[in-house]
Amino acid sequence: MPITTGLKDRETQLIDRLAQKIPSIGHAGNRAGVRLGIGDDATVLRPSVKSEWVLSCDFTLENVHFRDATHPPASVGYRCLARATSDIAAMGARPRYFLLALALPPSKTGKWLDLFASGMSRAAREFDMRLIGGDISRTASVAISITVLGEMPDGLAIPRSGAKPGHLIYVTGIVGAAQLGLEILLRGLAAKPSLKKCLQSHLYPQIPIALGQLLALRRIPSSMMDISDGLSTDLARLCVSSGVGARIFSNKLPKIPIPAALAGQNLDPLQLALHGGEDYGLLFTAAPKSARLLRSLARRTETRITHIGEITRTRKVLLVHPDGRESPLPSQGWDPFRKDSNRISTHEKKALTGLPQ
Amino acid sequence: MPITTGLKDRETQLIDRLAQKIPSIGHAGNRAGVRLGIGDDATVLRPSVKSEWVLSCDFTLENVHFRDATHPPASVGYRCLARATSDIAAMGARPRYFLLALALPPSKTGKWLDLFASGMSRAAREFDMRLIGGDISRTASVAISITVLGEMPDGLAIPRSGAKPGHLIYVTGIVGAAQLGLEILLRGLAAKPSLKKCLQSHLYPQIPIALGQLLALRRIPSSMMDISDGLSTDLARLCVSSGVGARIFSNKLPKIPIPAALAGQNLDPLQLALHGGEDYGLLFTAAPKSARLLRSLARRTETRITHIGEITRTRKVLLVHPDGRESPLPSQGWDPFRKDSNRISTHEKKALTGLPQ
Repeated sequence: MPITTGLKDRETQLIDRLAQKIPSIGHAGNRAGVRLGIGDDATVLRPSVKSEWVLSCDFTLENVHFRDATHPPASVGYRCLARATSDIAAMGARPRYFLLALALPPSKTGKWLDLFASGMSRAAREFDMRLIGGDISRTASVAISITVLGEMPDGLAIPRSGAKPGHLIYVTGIVGAAQLGLEILLRGLAAKPSLKKCLQSHLYPQIPIALGQLLALRRIPSSMMDISDGLSTDLARLCVSSGVGARIFSNKLPKIPIPAALAGQNLDPLQLALHGGEDYGLLFTAAPKSARLLRSLARRTETRITHIGEITRTRKVLLVHPDGRESPLPSQGWDPFRKDSNRISTHEKKALTGLPQ
Repeated sequence: MPITTGLKDRETQLIDRLAQKIPSIGHAGNRAGVRLGIGDDATVLRPSVKSEWVLSCDFTLENVHFRDATHPPASVGYRCLARATSDIAAMGARPRYFLLALALPPSKTGKWLDLFASGMSRAAREFDMRLIGGDISRTASVAISITVLGEMPDGLAIPRSGAKPGHLIYVTGIVGAAQLGLEILLRGLAAKPSLKKCLQSHLYPQIPIALGQLLALRRIPSSMMDISDGLSTDLARLCVSSGVGARIFSNKLPKIPIPAALAGQNLDPLQLALHGGEDYGLLFTAAPKSARLLRSLARRTETRITHIGEITRTRKVLLVHPDGRESPLPSQGWDPFRKDSNRISTHEKKALTGLPQ
């Protein structure tokens, strides 16, 4: 049915523009799971039998998760969807749909919004997801809330709570790579050509979606979560959920090498690996007998999987140093309500990176 | 399983506190639709056969949708859930679950948060909803994003797009009552005892959930939506979606009487009814033959339902004055991106209420 545009208010016009640019499902729905898509009070989903829905929502806020001066709008659009989708991958589910609630200042409704949409569109295509609804508002600084929906076979979702003493601890990818990218941005070094590629892990994080699904289908992990706030903080959460402790071996951590151009910047690969946030890799535990199968899955999905430690009965998180000495590993990743923890705005005060306090 | 708290970070502690205060479903899930609730990367839902899921998300932002100085925290908590739930009621669905993404300054993590949670808890009990997940962040001014999930029988959801020429237009409740409450707050008159009860429609809006479900079950409405941004703006959206026009009779609108204490404040019941926002009543269309059934449903649910106009073939929205004269009805409700439209922060400049410009 042809629709006049004369009656359309500005808000509706902006929603139409986003829906045109981002892979999405319109009002008429599709034949699979969506009966009614964008453009109504709500979205209507028709779930298939034998599958479960996995849901999560996640904020991305200006001056907390990104800065206008340092973060290209395409990265903001890509990253907010990646951050939310990471939670779906961490359950072992297949990401399907997302809702976008977007609050913007009027100055960002032109070119900024188009670039934001192009980044979000890239993420939606990479993750094979469709926009199915949302909300748009005006505000002084950008606020984005993404709600993601994934689907998975009945009963296969992997919670954080199943780790058992004796199980091995694994991470995917390199830990600390995204934090290194953020440090380069915040120190104003992003223009150096030799450092450009180090920014990618922070600006456009890769989400191990295929591996997450395979791990769940094979029922390998006893517990799993994504590393969003830093290994030290997220591992403590997994241990609390499972009622266990952990020992991590510092020399086993897959650390990020510091480029020569950053010599003198006082960046320590071990500190980045332990406390740096937003890698969005998987942190999981598995019985020792799964080690061989894990090596084969790593090859098949071209994902690096590293054994970094083991689950213990005593409810402490310990770091084992190369000389065999053990020390408590405090949660020094990102915790928005800890006094010294503010990923972006009080960056200069942060102990993590060894900058002068 | 007993869980130690020593390892718990501040963010996890805040989530625990909210989950204790607000009706919610914890990590273990329940026997009905939730396999895994609060406390993991994501929530896992097990949908029942023959039902559809209805989803919507909605922002509530400080200085846009509420002001710290004028809005009690309990109202902020109640209203943000009511606003989002209204979209579910407008499809004719039964609201079931919600996700809460909350960004707060550290100064609001104490008493403010407890009062916020008590208001949200009141709304969750009234609407029979459960909190099943979310996200908490730190920010300079409060941002809340609510994702709501409703459930309804297969194929009964009522979209905005089915209005046909000749169908009658109805609204529930009184239009403009919430805007009157907001005007009292913004003009600093909330302390006057005779005006206290006028604030309720704005601070604690009632959502016609039962009526919405009955209308859908009986398949009465050809189109339906909630009035969130004002009748003039929302009716235009319904017309665009349906490819039709409308005529509204000014003397049929269920207007709010202006209390004597507001004489001289230049408040016009007709302007409030046409353009005032956030009543969260239902706006729907139905074939003329349904009129009798509607009267019986109104009695049964103790909800006021008023016939206010009719759908036309010509794609214009017209206001019919008491003398029979017709004039175009411009969309002058809340549109966040129209220059003169800012519900709260540029209130003084607003033409709507007749204040000096």
